Amino acid sequence: MVTPPLVTFLPLLLILAAFSPEQTAATTHSKPKLFPPRTPLLTQALLRRHGRPSGSRVAGNKLAVTAAADGPNTTAANPFTAHYFPQELDHFTFTPNASMIFYQKYLINDTFWRRPSAAGDGAAGPLFVYTGNEGDIEWFATNTGFMFDIAPKFGALLVFIEHRFYGESMPFGNNSANSAETLGYLTSTQALADFAILITSLKQNLSAEAAPVVVFGGSYGGMLASWFRLKYPHVTIGALASSAPILQFDYITPWNSFYDAISQDYKSESLNCFSVIKASWDVLEERGSSEKGLLELSKMFKACQPLKYADSIGNWLETAITYTAMVDYPTPANFIENLPAYPVKEMCKIIDGFPANADILEKVSAAANLFYNYTGDQTCNQIETEDNSQTTVLDGWGWQACTEMVMPMSASNESMFPPSTFSYEETSDACFKSNGVRPRPHWITTEYGGYKIDKVLKRFGSNIIFSNGMRDPWSRGGVLKNISSSIVALVTEKGAHHLDLRSATKDDPNWVVEQRRQEVEIIQGWIDQYHQDMA
Amino acid sequence: MVTPPLVTFLPLLLILAAFSPEQTAATTHSKPKLFPPRTPLLTQALLRRHGRPSGSRVAGNKLAVTAAADGPNTTAANPFTAHYFPQELDHFTFTPNASMIFYQKYLINDTFWRRPSAAGDGAAGPLFVYTGNEGDIEWFATNTGFMFDIAPKFGALLVFIEHRFYGESMPFGNNSANSAETLGYLTSTQALADFAILITSLKQNLSAEAAPVVVFGGSYGGMLASWFRLKYPHVTIGALASSAPILQFDYITPWNSFYDAISQDYKSESLNCFSVIKASWDVLEERGSSEKGLLELSKMFKACQPLKYADSIGNWLETAITYTAMVDYPTPANFIENLPAYPVKEMCKIIDGFPANADILEKVSAAANLFYNYTGDQTCNQIETEDNSQTTVLDGWGWQACTEMVMPMSASNESMFPPSTFSYEETSDACFKSNGVRPRPHWITTEYGGYKIDKVLKRFGSNIIFSNGMRDPWSRGGVLKNISSSIVALVTEKGAHHLDLRSATKDDPNWVVEQRRQEVEIIQGWIDQYHQDMA
Repeated sequence: MVTPPLVTFLPLLLILAAFSPEQTAATTHSKPKLFPPRTPLLTQALLRRHGRPSGSRVAGNKLAVTAAADGPNTTAANPFTAHYFPQELDHFTFTPNASMIFYQKYLINDTFWRRPSAAGDGAAGPLFVYTGNEGDIEWFATNTGFMFDIAPKFGALLVFIEHRFYGESMPFGNNSANSAETLGYLTSTQALADFAILITSLKQNLSAEAAPVVVFGGSYGGMLASWFRLKYPHVTIGALASSAPILQFDYITPWNSFYDAISQDYKSESLNCFSVIKASWDVLEERGSSEKGLLELSKMFKACQPLKYADSIGNWLETAITYTAMVDYPTPANFIENLPAYPVKEMCKIIDGFPANADILEKVSAAANLFYNYTGDQTCNQIETEDNSQTTVLDGWGWQACTEMVMPMSASNESMFPPSTFSYEETSDACFKSNGVRPRPHWITTEYGGYKIDKVLKRFGSNIIFSNGMRDPWSRGGVLKNISSSIVALVTEKGAHHLDLRSATKDDPNWVVEQRRQEVEIIQGWIDQYHQDMA
Repeated sequence: MVTPPLVTFLPLLLILAAFSPEQTAATTHSKPKLFPPRTPLLTQALLRRHGRPSGSRVAGNKLAVTAAADGPNTTAANPFTAHYFPQELDHFTFTPNASMIFYQKYLINDTFWRRPSAAGDGAAGPLFVYTGNEGDIEWFATNTGFMFDIAPKFGALLVFIEHRFYGESMPFGNNSANSAETLGYLTSTQALADFAILITSLKQNLSAEAAPVVVFGGSYGGMLASWFRLKYPHVTIGALASSAPILQFDYITPWNSFYDAISQDYKSESLNCFSVIKASWDVLEERGSSEKGLLELSKMFKACQPLKYADSIGNWLETAITYTAMVDYPTPANFIENLPAYPVKEMCKIIDGFPANADILEKVSAAANLFYNYTGDQTCNQIETEDNSQTTVLDGWGWQACTEMVMPMSASNESMFPPSTFSYEETSDACFKSNGVRPRPHWITTEYGGYKIDKVLKRFGSNIIFSNGMRDPWSRGGVLKNISSSIVALVTEKGAHHLDLRSATKDDPNWVVEQRRQEVEIIQGWIDQYHQDMA
């Protein structure tokens, strides 16, 4: 069984566009590889729900451009208004293409804002800015209810900025994702500069130059938020970086930590659950190796079409197992899929509920169905895509993972996943084959740091919250210890992928209520200090 | 008399390549402009002595590439060895051109270095790195004797890195300065990333990963040093930024401060000196307005060829007056020109030495000759260039001044210069005409900050020395007050343009000895703290 770990090139949150199978060549296995090693099914499912492939919208709908200064009027029914900011393509050169304008989408909610004109003798309310990550900005805004929850207390203006080359913020419209000529401008540094320019301009337009700015982000957006505070302290007074694996690069974090963490999540629920999953891969490979066996598997896994590759099931299973660990929230949630509270526990309950001698693949199939079909509205599982023609359009995060965001990952023998290794050389070759580009694998640590971050930031910088939940495998690449009095780590043992950024619910356990309370208290401290300094 | 202030587009140190006359259109005068408003004479004179026009050398002489790890052996006679680092063209995109390699020159002196292998139980010596500015790196190395002076005490390795698009570090060889297609990659952000990558790689090659790095820079190089500490705190533990006018942008520093400061320098020597210079411009304009008058002026000013434009003399005078204020050192020096100690005082002595009723232009001509011909080896003055054909090659700093480094400057009626105003619009138009590019006039403050820098850096960052001498007009755009306990300003009333970076001499006054002593003490503190933190 040679299913490579799906998330080697996984966007931190999800894959919004089609994967090209070659990308997985970067993960090398002890056994020979089968083709194709990965299905884009999750992608397809998520696209249906949350977005569309990169490049499918026309960028820069000028008719939709409205000035934020006009005063958008948001309502409960319409929680934000959309705006489009004219942004230059390349902030770091003055080549002829550099000054090309594209329209970057951002969302505004001013319901709670204490405007400068209304502040009287008091101070205007702060700007709370979400530094958008790899997807439509609406989706992140919708899943960052924390900002809406706390905005009234702070009198804050909410701003959600879409990341270039995602959603509607496509510099070259439908042609944005065709080649390095266009996608080459999709980098984190350009995105941070976009944020700096947009925020500075927005504050001027709103006559809110004196208002403090706090940035928020989750996952890759959290990485951007923390880096934004480090690189642009003159634009933001502090950052809440939730589930931001800024140390998942180079040799900083052990390469097998991600899959080990997931394995630990399942093992903590039941050793049987862990063992069943661990044993399933070989069984799957063996039975899928014959045409007859593959047909039986297609039926057992309720595939919508007869499967062509046994590995498709492996990828499909791994996706379910991995994402469920990431979103192992303590309350029902509908972030990636509709799921009950504590879905890892629920998955293990399903596995453990079978008689011991039941078919092991029946067990894992039923467990995976919790992820894909908790609501029961799917009659079959889309395990393999029907159409691979979309792969001419490159995928935004796939591009980023093949350029800057090289996060080495491997699976150890102790994990419940098929063992796999990682090689920079093979990653480079695979990326060249799939995307026509070679990574700069050590660029992120050169540009943003990471090695000995505790020593470096103990003496430099301030006002960053790194929040992590240890159920989330990405937590292992995060900052888990306080660095200084104002660069702090808020860690919850039972939290998952940026749980703290989600809307409060009546069923929230105390530990997440407390985590959010601390975040509010710290942010309030930043704002108070800012006003004292300016007074 | 409508001579525009020469230094509107002046490189902080000097102009190394030909100016195109159109550039001065950015400075608008209350009177109509004459053509050409500026001569490239200084440039020519300096090129003869310190360099050559941009693009005249072949970049990337691979034969000369030697690995620093080989252990360069520097001697007193050969104070540094030259090396060439393969650098990528564009660090912030992955467009097809981005990965093109060019060879960046750097100099090494390891005479004093306590190598890791030789350090035994102790720590390896630090790397002292000069962040090169707008010119040949040898020239900056030669004029930064301070680093050599203090290297033995610290056991430091000295590294001087040439700025891309200057000296031999020409990404496109002789074609580097032809157009925006090539020069577009000449930006400060790319230069900083060059430094980060080169330093990181060098430390690895030297097995000196644990050695601390301190960066040094003067003028634009000082701006780069301070920005480097702010953007790359994981690469350097601190910066000595000497005469770094990082606040000479936007509306932070009053636009007329530069010329007011120069005027103040001369006025402080004698009111007569100030008044003579102030009165000279109108006389010059009047006499130069006829062909006969211009011929007489050519003789009086000992022009090597009969002058075509009266403004040439104005520019020539202004250059002498301005640069002399910048390098008003307390000891004889040969930085821009060979000059005696306290050259402003000497210039004013010359002016004041004339009978009151002597020809005012004789007075200023004699004063300017102190600057251009102190050694007396010039038989005539090269006031106008013979050949303007060179202007097809753009000038590196001219390009930077027309893209990022827009430093608004005007001359008030109270100054001793012809009044002039500044306009962003006209600057943009003039740059488009001369360089085919439009500035991003507010980019520097967006990228690096500057507004309320005291408030911002009071709560963020550490370990920067901003040193300034108040005789230097660039000091007005510098950081002149302590910001925090470790971001400090060392200001000397009598100091000039990065005097502290120059070699100690036996005649140095106590105040500069004391300034350098403080710098050493502070840098020692950074290094000690670093080793304590790492222990």
